[in-house]
Amino acid sequence: MPNALSVSRMTGNRSTFPQWYQAINREADLSEVSPVRGCMIIKPWGYGVWEEMQRDLDRRIKDTGHVNAYFPLFIPLSFFAKEAEHVEGFAKEMAVVTHHRLKTVDGKLEVDPEARLEEPLIVRPTSETIIGDAFQRWIQSHRDLPLLINQWANVVRWEMRTRLFLRTSEFLWQEGHTAHATADDARAETMKMLEVYRAFSEETLAMPVIAGEKPENERFPGAVATYSIEAMMQDGKALQAGTSHYLGQNFARAQNIRFQSAAGELEYCHTTSWGVSTRLIGGVVMTHGDDDGLRLPPAIAPRQIVIVPMLRDKPEDAEVLAFGEALSKQLSATTTLGERTRALLDTRAQRSADKRWEWIRRGAPILVELGPRDAAAGQVTFMRRDALRNGDKIVSQAMPLAEFVARAPALLAEIQASLFAEAKARLDANIRTDIASFDALAEYFGAASEDDEEGEAFKGWVRAPWSRPTGAALETVEERLKSLKLTLRNIPLAQTGAGGSCLFTGAPAVEEVLIARAY
Amino acid sequence: MPNALSVSRMTGNRSTFPQWYQAINREADLSEVSPVRGCMIIKPWGYGVWEEMQRDLDRRIKDTGHVNAYFPLFIPLSFFAKEAEHVEGFAKEMAVVTHHRLKTVDGKLEVDPEARLEEPLIVRPTSETIIGDAFQRWIQSHRDLPLLINQWANVVRWEMRTRLFLRTSEFLWQEGHTAHATADDARAETMKMLEVYRAFSEETLAMPVIAGEKPENERFPGAVATYSIEAMMQDGKALQAGTSHYLGQNFARAQNIRFQSAAGELEYCHTTSWGVSTRLIGGVVMTHGDDDGLRLPPAIAPRQIVIVPMLRDKPEDAEVLAFGEALSKQLSATTTLGERTRALLDTRAQRSADKRWEWIRRGAPILVELGPRDAAAGQVTFMRRDALRNGDKIVSQAMPLAEFVARAPALLAEIQASLFAEAKARLDANIRTDIASFDALAEYFGAASEDDEEGEAFKGWVRAPWSRPTGAALETVEERLKSLKLTLRNIPLAQTGAGGSCLFTGAPAVEEVLIARAY
Repeated sequence: MPNALSVSRMTGNRSTFPQWYQAINREADLSEVSPVRGCMIIKPWGYGVWEEMQRDLDRRIKDTGHVNAYFPLFIPLSFFAKEAEHVEGFAKEMAVVTHHRLKTVDGKLEVDPEARLEEPLIVRPTSETIIGDAFQRWIQSHRDLPLLINQWANVVRWEMRTRLFLRTSEFLWQEGHTAHATADDARAETMKMLEVYRAFSEETLAMPVIAGEKPENERFPGAVATYSIEAMMQDGKALQAGTSHYLGQNFARAQNIRFQSAAGELEYCHTTSWGVSTRLIGGVVMTHGDDDGLRLPPAIAPRQIVIVPMLRDKPEDAEVLAFGEALSKQLSATTTLGERTRALLDTRAQRSADKRWEWIRRGAPILVELGPRDAAAGQVTFMRRDALRNGDKIVSQAMPLAEFVARAPALLAEIQASLFAEAKARLDANIRTDIASFDALAEYFGAASEDDEEGEAFKGWVRAPWSRPTGAALETVEERLKSLKLTLRNIPLAQTGAGGSCLFTGAPAVEEVLIARAY
Repeated sequence: MPNALSVSRMTGNRSTFPQWYQAINREADLSEVSPVRGCMIIKPWGYGVWEEMQRDLDRRIKDTGHVNAYFPLFIPLSFFAKEAEHVEGFAKEMAVVTHHRLKTVDGKLEVDPEARLEEPLIVRPTSETIIGDAFQRWIQSHRDLPLLINQWANVVRWEMRTRLFLRTSEFLWQEGHTAHATADDARAETMKMLEVYRAFSEETLAMPVIAGEKPENERFPGAVATYSIEAMMQDGKALQAGTSHYLGQNFARAQNIRFQSAAGELEYCHTTSWGVSTRLIGGVVMTHGDDDGLRLPPAIAPRQIVIVPMLRDKPEDAEVLAFGEALSKQLSATTTLGERTRALLDTRAQRSADKRWEWIRRGAPILVELGPRDAAAGQVTFMRRDALRNGDKIVSQAMPLAEFVARAPALLAEIQASLFAEAKARLDANIRTDIASFDALAEYFGAASEDDEEGEAFKGWVRAPWSRPTGAALETVEERLKSLKLTLRNIPLAQTGAGGSCLFTGAPAVEEVLIARAY
């Protein structure tokens, strides 16, 4: 029995991992490169995954008291100049609209030079400045606080080297923006949304993460503190899967977001922002994919149970189809993980073996193959995508229809749990805490400092004592890590309090920091 | 009892209608003008309405076999040049990205002249060209057809004179794009989606429409046939509420979208496109709003039943709140129009009279005011937003809690039906079919040909015999209508076959056409 993909993620070294990632994107119908530099096309199955993610996360965002709104795609150039640190962090690569008209000259379409905008418009890379401008108008009194807004939108950050879902010039995301009367309230909001992201990532995406604070050099431009959740991909690299920022009064001062307190004083608000993006789809691929293709956690699978009828242009076909329709209907009447079970009878006119492999590559959690014997016996033969093979053999089970329908929601919940457990075991097993010096770190990650990444062995993360250096001392650390292609990921919220000496400064450690290669 | 709005839509003439429309947008928290020229901010309540619309329409689009996907925001300039008629129709006002970087010069943020793009990128005004390019890659065989794709996205068309929701430079919409093997299939798709829009508009928005074909001069650039649904606003003007286009093989030829037929021949596909936008929110306002503010059809009300507790900082408050919570919880367990009833207990720290008027202006279909006496008696006192007043008096009813909960879904369905019936009666009563000549038409709409619109009396639509002139003859008709500020709306699908002479050419009529002022 062949693999579904032509390339394996794990053939002894990491070198095939990027090709494997591309193969899944292509063969699971997730996304593709577009003719527009740096922009991707999210194909129907990939977009279906995003829709399930959105539905679930949107509910969590609303359950915590936020409402959605929509702000302009364009931001006047002058808005960026308001918050100095923010400008510094973002001023490099953005899409700039300078004209508002085309014209035909000698039958050729051109930009009309007379239609130059007085002020260039930036296609939003993030919306703190334009939303802050609205906040400044909307907020007058402490009674208007907290103001808890979220936006689902596309954003653009011009990227030179792009990778499907992980780094593209345009991507889709949600960005939360909130304003509060006190620092405590804003800090509590920042931590609440970090926890929402952790729960969403682990419960819905079955992707275990470590939540923590970013070191100062990795902060969002203009933020007082930035927190992240970090996930471990199957090549050992870290993926920053979501961020939550406490912005202090920096943006409020720059944009004059003030309120009259209960005591009658005019005060600046404390603001936050937080976001996750379509990058998470890449995270799901690199967390759960295998050499047969994608494996989707049932909570985000656009179709959780796919029924492929084995049709042979024979009279029995009608019976098989009727049985499949009854099964699909009965499954759709059950509830899985709090929602209607998403079942599909795939009646497309293609070979059933091709359809089977297509759904395996796409990662449908349960695949039912229905033949005339099944229909006659009233039984359901199915495969679990999370446990597709035993060695080289495909594993299938059979059950009477009624039993299968009754057990399907529990089976799907079991698949959700098993995918999480597998990823959690990998994360837990691959964080080294025994690296005691920078030399040891260099030795462990050594192979990677060679220019080519061929033959590179699997390396996970290192959790090391950290004295929290700042300024120039932190820059030195960053440089030394860079030489090993490493970065500081975050300072986990859950600290062991182990103490020891800082791996970099030798000073007494105040906490532990995660070090990893990263996307 | 004062009106909720400071301006009336109907004080003897049309002149206050635009101010009334602006007042509702402002006071119902729907939208506002942004500091970015031509772009609006969709505020939380307005966006909540859009979310309900999206949810309902998305279901209809998927139930008819379409899947969602996402394509790039940017379209290379050269793509527009491919379909000649399409260029002509759209080549005027678009946002053009010419640079991809900013830089700081002497502390000032500027566009980096060295970061000019080789080819300018257009911010999509619509996506036929970029999606067609993907279709050309995705379609090989007749087995790949039909290809039925939809996209929810923002689009930009640079507008000089803008109006909230109705005409803004950026707006949100869905755009369907499909490819078929035969003209018949593509035409059937075009009509199917027109019918989806009609049903959505009438059943969900409670907004009656007339579906028909656009005359040749109003076709989408590059289309073989364009169909629309047209709704009548309370000032008598028509609003084009949705369009569905049969594109023939025009785009397929321009973009080389071909398939191998069952017979082995290489053939061009027949394509369609269709869309509705946030403009529909403006349509809902101008269809259902009254002098107290917005009235929302329950199917799209983000909150269908709002409970305002009358709190007085007294011990009874606890009882009132407990009663309100029980009521809200019980209502949320019921099903209205196929979904969970959307109830809200509004516990914000504001005066209850202010909250009441806020929810009336926002158009919540049922408003419950809960005082200590209600709580003590276990009864619910409520107002229906569709029948708020009897003369100047606000009408409220009282019912025991259990009865109210049991009847609430039916009451909401009744409100949905009554809003539709009211608008349908207005539409039906205001289409004149007795105008027999252009002079009579000019006389009927006469007042409007004066430059100012002050004092203009209500005018509905005219349905007139039509000989379907084309080319120069049609242009003449267009010019004559323009002098009366009129346009041809569509040729209704439902024809009476009355015959007669064409209002414009005098030739024998082949059908009837709708004539109206329009947004």
